[in-house]
Amino acid sequence: MKIANFNQGRIGVVEDAAIADISSVIGYDPIAWPPTGMLRFITAFKHIKPRIVEKLQTAERIPFAEVQLNCPVAWPNKVIAFPANYHAHIDEMKTGTGLISKFDASGQGFFLKANSSLCGPNDPIVLPDLPDREIHHECELAIIIGKGGRSISRERALEHVFGYSCLIDVVVRGKEERVMRKSFDSFCPMGPYLTTADEVPRYDDIDLELSVNGDLRQKANTRNLIVGVPEMIAMASSVMTLYPGDIIASGTPAGVGPLKAGDHVAIRIASVGEMTLEVKQGKDGAHPVWNKAPAMSLA
Amino acid sequence: MKIANFNQGRIGVVEDAAIADISSVIGYDPIAWPPTGMLRFITAFKHIKPRIVEKLQTAERIPFAEVQLNCPVAWPNKVIAFPANYHAHIDEMKTGTGLISKFDASGQGFFLKANSSLCGPNDPIVLPDLPDREIHHECELAIIIGKGGRSISRERALEHVFGYSCLIDVVVRGKEERVMRKSFDSFCPMGPYLTTADEVPRYDDIDLELSVNGDLRQKANTRNLIVGVPEMIAMASSVMTLYPGDIIASGTPAGVGPLKAGDHVAIRIASVGEMTLEVKQGKDGAHPVWNKAPAMSLA
Repeated sequence: MKIANFNQGRIGVVEDAAIADISSVIGYDPIAWPPTGMLRFITAFKHIKPRIVEKLQTAERIPFAEVQLNCPVAWPNKVIAFPANYHAHIDEMKTGTGLISKFDASGQGFFLKANSSLCGPNDPIVLPDLPDREIHHECELAIIIGKGGRSISRERALEHVFGYSCLIDVVVRGKEERVMRKSFDSFCPMGPYLTTADEVPRYDDIDLELSVNGDLRQKANTRNLIVGVPEMIAMASSVMTLYPGDIIASGTPAGVGPLKAGDHVAIRIASVGEMTLEVKQGKDGAHPVWNKAPAMSLA
Repeated sequence: MKIANFNQGRIGVVEDAAIADISSVIGYDPIAWPPTGMLRFITAFKHIKPRIVEKLQTAERIPFAEVQLNCPVAWPNKVIAFPANYHAHIDEMKTGTGLISKFDASGQGFFLKANSSLCGPNDPIVLPDLPDREIHHECELAIIIGKGGRSISRERALEHVFGYSCLIDVVVRGKEERVMRKSFDSFCPMGPYLTTADEVPRYDDIDLELSVNGDLRQKANTRNLIVGVPEMIAMASSVMTLYPGDIIASGTPAGVGPLKAGDHVAIRIASVGEMTLEVKQGKDGAHPVWNKAPAMSLA
């Protein structure tokens, strides 16, 4: 099942050319703030699945052209990200810039991106006003937690996956805190929807690719992840309780590169989804913190 | 006004020896998940203040002894943290361990702690099962955002502060990702309540201190912050939209040191509040990621 968040918080099941509106199954309050309806949907999913199937028989179908897709999960407990999780990307960063850490995700662990950096497939990636900096795309599989928990074993980790989505991890290159460089508004596009785990049985052998203006920039397969999906869940939950809707960005393969205003960035993950985003130049973001030259690199 | 979150999500105004229950002013649903009632309260605060004052005339008073205080803000959009924000702490880290970065918060920027690391004044700090590691306390002033926004100027930043609270930033020392080392469950106790900004006019000249088992370990004044309160808000909002309830941990002064099971950690911030937490040994947390020896330090 492909679950979308659309038209300001409505929840729908994606069909061929339309979305079936199933918001009423979980209850829908258009002025609810913060936007956590999808968290409640994910939490209740197994329980309400029969009602979803029943609702689908009569649900209103809205043509795609009339729909504004939102970020599928806008206000999770956290967005976890694994750096240095493909060998070929580690190699390119060492060679190209010397900026990446000297160890990989298995020994380095994870960091976080801000919830406020999340945006959806119909939103632009807005570049901050930092003309002297390169801003890079990173093509990543997103794992969406279904059943929460702490100290989840690698063996049982897949039971905790609700589904998968496409995620572009956008980053300002430099030596400042990585978390800050990765947390600008719109620096975490996710979508176009959540594909439930039952439709992605070969999560450990799926192709992912990213192109800019039609030119293929990144191409990889999740079989080359250093820390795989079950182990990411095990490691993250050894530290933190995971909650329904938590997002894990699994790290980028090789081929990262700069984005500029006017670019169109397309990400495609086999059996998960695809989306294309426009890149725009924004006016925000300039600040003296970017003008210092710290002595130490943090990738 | 001192605003507490108590007895599983109720909202109260703290008086001398009791809490006045004002939950009904904002509406209270005891089974609401995720726990975002305080976010809605903070968002509505200026608007509902007359109703709060009216409610206080008749509100039920609950003696402190009967109250379980929760973390005042349990599910914000984000918990922002400024590292290396007091010179004396930077010096002690350079001298003691060589682990800290060579630049300060003004050039390094901020990172994030996981929402799931938040806990309240009645919760224990639970040490992970990492017997070979030192786990340190860091005494910090927490700033709670009231009115959200992007690109907030330093001059107008204080208009965006809802209030302040005491925050202990707990961290496993080592060379892995700082975010991971700081995001264990219970590694971000905050409380005992939120003290609204009008009661903390001298936010830039307040004493803060932390003691362990009665021994004073950290003592400082916010006048010694490298990046002060208005500038932290300006810098963070130059990158990210801030939302009501967002938490900024302002960085630790000198005197950080190890915690062990059985310790009692007390934090006190003048005009803001004080709380004492017990330290317990937990069973979770062991993972191979802690057994590697990466070549590069991340403080």
